Amino acid sequence: MNRVPEEGMVLVPGGSLITRTPEEGRALAITLARHTVHNIQPDLDILLGGRPNYSTTPDSLTRAAQVVAIEFQTIAAANDYWRAGG
Amino acid sequence: MNRVPEEGMVLVPGGSLITRTPEEGRALAITLARHTVHNIQPDLDILLGGRPNYSTTPDSLTRAAQVVAIEFQTIAAANDYWRAGG
Amino acid sequence: MNRVPEEGMVLVPGGSLITRTPEEGRALAITLARHTVHNIQPDLDILLGGRPNYSTTPDSLTRAAQVVAIEFQTIAAANDYWRAGG
Amino acid sequence: MNRVPEEGMVLVPGGSLITRTPEEGRALAITLARHTVHNIQPDLDILLGGRPNYSTTPDSLTRAAQVVAIEFQTIAAANDYWRAGG
Amino acid sequence: MNRVPEEGMVLVPGGSLITRTPEEGRALAITLARHTVHNIQPDLDILLGGRPNYSTTPDSLTRAAQVVAIEFQTIAAANDYWRAGG
Amino acid sequence: MNRVPEEGMVLVPGGSLITRTPEEGRALAITLARHTVHNIQPDLDILLGGRPNYSTTPDSLTRAAQVVAIEFQTIAAANDYWRAGG
Repeated sequence: MNRVPEEGMVLVPGGSLITRTPEEGRALAITLARHTVHNIQPDLDILLGGRPNYSTTPDSLTRAAQVVAIEFQTIAAANDYWRAGG
Repeated sequence: MNRVPEEGMVLVPGGSLITRTPEEGRALAITLARHTVHNIQPDLDILLGGRPNYSTTPDSLTRAAQVVAIEFQTIAAANDYWRAGG
Repeated sequence: MNRVPEEGMVLVPGGSLITRTPEEGRALAITLARHTVHNIQPDLDILLGGRPNYSTTPDSLTRAAQVVAIEFQTIAAANDYWRAGG
Repeated sequence: MNRVPEEGMVLVPGGSLITRTPEEGRALAITLARHTVHNIQPDLDILLGGRPNYSTTPDSLTRAAQVVAIEFQTIAAANDYWRAGG
Repeated sequence: MNRVPEEGMVLVPGGSLITRTPEEGRALAITLARHTVHNIQPDLDILLGGRPNYSTTPDSLTRAAQVVAIEFQTIAAANDYWRAGG
Repeated sequence: MNRVPEEGMVLVPGGSLITRTPEEGRALAITLARHTVHNIQPDLDILLGGRPNYSTTPDSLTRAAQVVAIEFQTIAAANDYWRAGG
């Protein structure tokens, strides 16, 4: 099996939900969602094999965007919405 | 590849969740959702190619509206629901 | 294009999440969801063309009801659940 | 058109999210979800016509249960989870 | 009709969201979701008839798990996440 | 029936939502989601039989990632987002 590299398997890269900016928080939300998928399906060939269909199907993109939105809710709350320095 | 322009790739345009009004907060929610999609699929031709089908399918529109609703929850909380000046 | 009238394009009609009653808050939730859809698909003929199928399909109605439920969470929180005068 | 009776069109029957018990809160959650659907599709014959298929399809029931769960989140928060008298 | 027994129709068995442990809270989340379904479809034969297909379809199981996750959010908040005795 | 081992049936392994790190919290979120599924479908052969299709279908993976995101919201809130030692 062509396994996802170990850094792609870490569930919370950096080990913290705290980020300096909303932009970084948003990037973390995308990463969290992706790494969950890696942990369910760690075979890189299968992941890449599904990508051409998934990434060209609007409903699939909407579904993925929804997961990111949910992860971002958590990260934004963790950072108190970056109000202090926002 | 006909890539989405760089400003469409910024995850949090303006770098903040704070907006002056609910209307602007709502517009930001739509933008956040769209820019997530751009980051997953940055090929503008593929995005535009999927649009005729997606944007005429009620269930697809409902799914998109749901993502906006979730993003707006975060933005509204970040702005304390614009109570101060609402 | 037979475009949705301008008032249907306003994302937050009235410019506030604050309503006098839960009933009005609920109506606002429905409006927010609908106006999001208008902004994604502003062609009234396409919207009305999809309605016969959408509005007679139980799963589509359930999906729409879910979006309203999510919007209402935000509005209810904004109004502190109308506890003061509830 | 055989229209849903007026009491089925009220978005928040009783005009409040406050209930005496969790059981009543749960019943209100179901009612909120149902009345949203009535407002999107007020034709009783269409609603009843869809029911045989909808109510015998497990995924449709799960989707409906999800909407109720989301509505209940709001109602439970409004009632401070009925902690005082729970 | 072979109706779901009365105890399966109670929306909030025990009449409270408060549980002693997270494990009991999780069990209550599953029960809440199931009893919602019972109230929408109280015919036990129909429910059991759908089970072989539903319970062997991964996406259906994921959907059901999502409803439980949402119900558990409410129950966990109600119990202040069992922090006091957790 | 080749039943899921008893430890896979425990709804909240460890009996607590409190974890030392976000990484452990994330792992718990995945476990909670999986164990819900085990409790709905405890037949290991059926679960494993569905896996080849489920784990190679992008939309199924996205759906699963969404459940994990929702569970993580609860766990992250329970741990006050690991701010103290994050």
